[in-house]
Amino acid sequence: MKRGYFITFEGGDGSGKSTQIKLLQDFLTEQGYHVLLTREPGGTAISEKIRDIILDKKNAEMCDMTETMLYAAARAQLVQQVIKPAVDGGDIVICDRFVDSSIAYQAWGRGLGDLVWDINRHAVGDYMPDLTILLKLDPMQGMKRIKSREQDRIELSSDDFHRKVYEGYLNLEAMDSDRIKGIDASQGIDRIAEQIRDLVEDLINR
Amino acid sequence: MKRGYFITFEGGDGSGKSTQIKLLQDFLTEQGYHVLLTREPGGTAISEKIRDIILDKKNAEMCDMTETMLYAAARAQLVQQVIKPAVDGGDIVICDRFVDSSIAYQAWGRGLGDLVWDINRHAVGDYMPDLTILLKLDPMQGMKRIKSREQDRIELSSDDFHRKVYEGYLNLEAMDSDRIKGIDASQGIDRIAEQIRDLVEDLINR
Repeated sequence: MKRGYFITFEGGDGSGKSTQIKLLQDFLTEQGYHVLLTREPGGTAISEKIRDIILDKKNAEMCDMTETMLYAAARAQLVQQVIKPAVDGGDIVICDRFVDSSIAYQAWGRGLGDLVWDINRHAVGDYMPDLTILLKLDPMQGMKRIKSREQDRIELSSDDFHRKVYEGYLNLEAMDSDRIKGIDASQGIDRIAEQIRDLVEDLINR
Repeated sequence: MKRGYFITFEGGDGSGKSTQIKLLQDFLTEQGYHVLLTREPGGTAISEKIRDIILDKKNAEMCDMTETMLYAAARAQLVQQVIKPAVDGGDIVICDRFVDSSIAYQAWGRGLGDLVWDINRHAVGDYMPDLTILLKLDPMQGMKRIKSREQDRIELSSDDFHRKVYEGYLNLEAMDSDRIKGIDASQGIDRIAEQIRDLVEDLINR
């Protein structure tokens, strides 16, 4: 059986990932592909329980290392239980956030640096994405977009944190430009969707 | 202010840790020491929530890497929030299990090897115990002792798993004999307690 594809979406909070993921899923499904949509942290029963701990505003005293390890724990379970079997079985897996989020949010945002990858390489194994769509939006504009809804523990972090996260994403894009494709997320929804479809078609026809 | 002491108890399930911890706590408290008793996984509000996920029998599909990372996450929080401030503040902290459990249970029992320490060194930082009491009991005898009570997800692992855990403990004892002191846990309770008191007095009077 032909191996499928593993596509991830990255970007700051409010960069429009959910909207674009839904549009890509619809597009690929219409083309006849079997698409599995999942998210981080979460995507399995165990990982969703870990998600609840990570995002709960009541856990304000969580230290940065614990946060980093909880993300990695949820990721390890998602890779083993969902992503690996689905991609090996020929599906297209679309994941809302993956290991790049840990690098941007914990290595850069929290300032933990290289140890974030040291820990996460054990969670990811050899299951890196085939393509990562990075929705690039000024972090303060992103925060403005989500102001109206209730925010979780991570989103409630300082403006300075969100700026560092964005800086982390730009660095990742520069370091791994073959896999990570940045798109200007201040454009209209349809224009962004079109560019994403082009990138995914390039991947599938490669 | 004089730094306190960090003492951990290790051993297979049913080796009598809880009984001996209580006796040591009473002894030290009577001597006028301020003793803080804690446990792993757990010991903080966040770590206890992680404990619930780790030990819940319903989470039977948990992969070994996720288990390893959840223990490390709970440990990082416990070190930062409880152990470090208490020991730095002059207390004697007694912890029921610590990082040696991860080496015995995940590196040896689950067979994950060196990566378990790679991950855990970030959780422990420089907070290794001053003294570790290892209660040594044939693992099958230990399992017999706990047969009457309800068992958690880890305890329900195979006999072969518990034998490997014990082998891991013996290896740790041999590798780090300055810190890890093995005691024959098939002896009577009072005889064991006496040997533990001697070791702790040696530490305090060192």
